[in-house]
Amino acid sequence: MELLKKRIIEEGTVIEDEILKVDSFLNHQMDIELFKAMGETFYERFKERKITKILKIEASGIGIAAIAALYFKVPVVFAKKTQSKNLDAETYCSKVYSFTKQKYYDVQVSKRYLSKEDHILVIDDFLANGKAAEGIIDIITQSGATLEGIGIVIEKGFQEGGKLLRDRDIHVESLAIIDGFKNGKVIFRDRAASPE
Amino acid sequence: MELLKKRIIEEGTVIEDEILKVDSFLNHQMDIELFKAMGETFYERFKERKITKILKIEASGIGIAAIAALYFKVPVVFAKKTQSKNLDAETYCSKVYSFTKQKYYDVQVSKRYLSKEDHILVIDDFLANGKAAEGIIDIITQSGATLEGIGIVIEKGFQEGGKLLRDRDIHVESLAIIDGFKNGKVIFRDRAASPE
Repeated sequence: MELLKKRIIEEGTVIEDEILKVDSFLNHQMDIELFKAMGETFYERFKERKITKILKIEASGIGIAAIAALYFKVPVVFAKKTQSKNLDAETYCSKVYSFTKQKYYDVQVSKRYLSKEDHILVIDDFLANGKAAEGIIDIITQSGATLEGIGIVIEKGFQEGGKLLRDRDIHVESLAIIDGFKNGKVIFRDRAASPE
Repeated sequence: MELLKKRIIEEGTVIEDEILKVDSFLNHQMDIELFKAMGETFYERFKERKITKILKIEASGIGIAAIAALYFKVPVVFAKKTQSKNLDAETYCSKVYSFTKQKYYDVQVSKRYLSKEDHILVIDDFLANGKAAEGIIDIITQSGATLEGIGIVIEKGFQEGGKLLRDRDIHVESLAIIDGFKNGKVIFRDRAASPE
């Protein structure tokens, strides 16, 4: 998606050729006009699928899931990370490994909000090692719902998540795929759109 | 807002006359059509103010902040709860007391995303004791921005947050104010709309 790549080139900061910071429009400040364009692009790429719900692990990325849901006209369900008095007793539950925190955490979805009649689009802001996606696919499988696809804002193509998911014949659409960093610049998978 | 009260009456569950569970449309599953109506209502109630940004503490409530931002045509900035390598070194920071976790946590906003030229609308899904709102007002004050108002989805009118904020002449608009629970039913401040 050229508009997104342009924003990454213009405003993204690469830290130590390792971390991409996109605070100014994606994950500290959200540029809602860009979010609308991204939501519409997800709709264009998945509109042939009969989506009934968008699924997302809280917390980051709920904004883009909510805006995308406007175009699909479906509810968003988010998998909860924390145990809460408010959560139903009957849930689908999976364990997700966090590399940053170096431990497993539980994600849960109430059985009331996922059923075998559902056709699910998973939306997330980042895809790296794919551990969160794995957890959410496990929950979808438990519920008997159909996974129609995964929409990602920024895929870190140099990590294995995207490959692992596509190898399982899952329809993954990433609005920007980053193959790496060089001298503080981002290298996109589509070389023509790269700033190099 | 009658549409919201209707959903609370029809789908909300009162647990032990103490906790209101609104999972099915607000904080586990998000009904995006209802969110649009709520976003539009916030816009109607604050459109005379010159809003330049919507501010929100992550994580719950980011969905409604994002949808409301569509109507105001402004970015959403969310205050971060966690220390992160990705966060700018220069931040406005405040401490917020969590009654549920019985401890203080830091909330931070990068100095790049708040300035004295900004006119801020704070949006949140719940208002109870007002501690989160206090933290966010502290951050707005530090930045020199103008707080134009606070929009709340559900205010627990039997807790002190709303009163404390209104006593400071802050413009608070809550889409539903709950004065308490009785025999498993919700008592709204506007008695005419109450299910009693």
